Amino acid sequence: MPISTKPNLTVRREHPFNAETPAERLVAAMTTPTADFYVRNHGSMPEPDTATHRLSVGGMVEKPLDLDLATLEKDFERREVRALMQCAGNRRRDLLAVAPVAGDPWGPGALGNADWSGVSLADVLKAAGVKEGKGLHVAIDCLDECEMDGETFTYGVSIPLEKAMHPLTLIATGMNGEALTREHGAPMRIVAPGFAGARNAKWVRAITVQDHPSDNPIQRTEYKLFPSEITAETADPAKGMTIEPMPLNSAICIPANHANLKEGRTTVAGWAVSGSHPIARVELSLDGGRSWLQTELENDTDHPWSWTLWSIEVPLCVGDHELVARAFDAAGQTQPSLSDDTWNYKGYLENAWHRVHVVVG
Amino acid sequence: MPISTKPNLTVRREHPFNAETPAERLVAAMTTPTADFYVRNHGSMPEPDTATHRLSVGGMVEKPLDLDLATLEKDFERREVRALMQCAGNRRRDLLAVAPVAGDPWGPGALGNADWSGVSLADVLKAAGVKEGKGLHVAIDCLDECEMDGETFTYGVSIPLEKAMHPLTLIATGMNGEALTREHGAPMRIVAPGFAGARNAKWVRAITVQDHPSDNPIQRTEYKLFPSEITAETADPAKGMTIEPMPLNSAICIPANHANLKEGRTTVAGWAVSGSHPIARVELSLDGGRSWLQTELENDTDHPWSWTLWSIEVPLCVGDHELVARAFDAAGQTQPSLSDDTWNYKGYLENAWHRVHVVVG
Repeated sequence: MPISTKPNLTVRREHPFNAETPAERLVAAMTTPTADFYVRNHGSMPEPDTATHRLSVGGMVEKPLDLDLATLEKDFERREVRALMQCAGNRRRDLLAVAPVAGDPWGPGALGNADWSGVSLADVLKAAGVKEGKGLHVAIDCLDECEMDGETFTYGVSIPLEKAMHPLTLIATGMNGEALTREHGAPMRIVAPGFAGARNAKWVRAITVQDHPSDNPIQRTEYKLFPSEITAETADPAKGMTIEPMPLNSAICIPANHANLKEGRTTVAGWAVSGSHPIARVELSLDGGRSWLQTELENDTDHPWSWTLWSIEVPLCVGDHELVARAFDAAGQTQPSLSDDTWNYKGYLENAWHRVHVVVG
Repeated sequence: MPISTKPNLTVRREHPFNAETPAERLVAAMTTPTADFYVRNHGSMPEPDTATHRLSVGGMVEKPLDLDLATLEKDFERREVRALMQCAGNRRRDLLAVAPVAGDPWGPGALGNADWSGVSLADVLKAAGVKEGKGLHVAIDCLDECEMDGETFTYGVSIPLEKAMHPLTLIATGMNGEALTREHGAPMRIVAPGFAGARNAKWVRAITVQDHPSDNPIQRTEYKLFPSEITAETADPAKGMTIEPMPLNSAICIPANHANLKEGRTTVAGWAVSGSHPIARVELSLDGGRSWLQTELENDTDHPWSWTLWSIEVPLCVGDHELVARAFDAAGQTQPSLSDDTWNYKGYLENAWHRVHVVVG
């Protein structure tokens, strides 16, 4: 089966297959259709047999488990969560304008909001007799084959046990009302709401409770945030910050960057995501940040892990314009203005004011 | 009893008595001694008789309570929490440099970290048979007499029931190992960790579960955050954001602003507080934010509601210098660079990069 036939997506890399949602499709609905949902891979895209695939649960538990999909769905309560998921490299392109960074040049479409269903990871860990305690981790081992620095291995990460025990951290088997598709990790993946996509591992085969983070290269060296003075030459992965929760962020989805518009009233719309507290306001500037307009928010208040969509109609006269967006959360926190202040050599967690240039004539 | 004999504090206003901690005292220890702790009042400083003071618990509960201090301490489990408390107007002085704002010109010392003890507000509400539900509020009525816009009333605010039910939201009766002092709300106050000081009401006399926020003028009109284009003339209090959790922030405490220093190595130190995620790093710039140095963090890891202290030794040559500090949290969130971006006419939640000017010669 060809894996890159995703007509709704903008492909950033064919091998491994990585593709994002065109920004204008993102604001069409509160949840992102599966066909429009960004796809991020680190290696192969496995296609395990749903009937025979097994999940093992072990490590620091009293009763290790070995479950197939049918048993998982039969023995554990079904749970649902609407959650935003995003790549840690979302909006990396804006950091490239400051200085080169590693990784694919994601625009503002390496994220999506979906209705996930499955079982609570906590319920499964409890059934296995997990020993709760401080400083424990849940390692997640997967089927996708990766290669990095000449080393071949299968994908693996970990999340803190505390996050794993959140009732809405799921072993997900469904997405948007249907079974998970291959590119989103069928037959089962982790959904850890609020955490970077990398921790929401796909094609999960083993879950291990342990007293240290995963030793997998993905956990050990990838997805680390470094201060701006650190480079690839000076970086010590052990000293980088492990990326888990994502920051307050927002982006303009329409009009597209470099769009040619007619003079008159134009709708500007986009997304905002919170690092913790709900989005309180999203502002748009037509003068580079000297003054700001309040946009209309569509808050998904019944779903605290969801995103916020926003829109505003503004008059634009003939000429070149820079549109700038920024969000504030319910703690009064806002985004930094310049990508100089968020730049890091791996290009993660870009959340400076989002800027789009349009020509009106 | 004279109320303003607080030799360790810098008085910002005598009536009502408002005073902050000199910045250099803040970084002397992880917890702030009670004698050094900032004091914020909105009206009188009552001195209720501890033996006869009573707390009523009512509203949407099955069994209203009427408790004296002895009963409160006898009938409910003792709880402790180390928590940072800060005024919503902390660092307001930095906003004044942009444009006038209302309220006292607080420097970076309207905050402090203390060991609070008392009972869990949730335990008391449960004993009263609270009916949990969404959209409920806990109104807190107090003894201090306030005057605002010609109206006289006693202080009152509310917090969401969800926050009131957090096991570490306390009816506090002790501070730093001793009974609460008069100026900190003896015999009992609310401690709602992470929430602005205004919600941590002092001299509490009544707690009421209700389906709407407190009608008290303090809740209705004070402590609202507005966008920067709103002024006193255009503000509609009903549309302002109710200030509850506080944002990521940091400040330089030593050297003091406008200090005269000798050439050579100087210790720069300060505080950082998180809006949600732990502090990951605090950076210092000696060149206005073009480059940054990593400071040493003293994270109070056993106390998630505590602050972080930081320090660094830097070489300073002869001349005028601007020292700039900013923090990053564990979600990669950071502070905005300019107070232009945080300015609001009431002067709340200032968390732009903190700047201190020194002369070395």
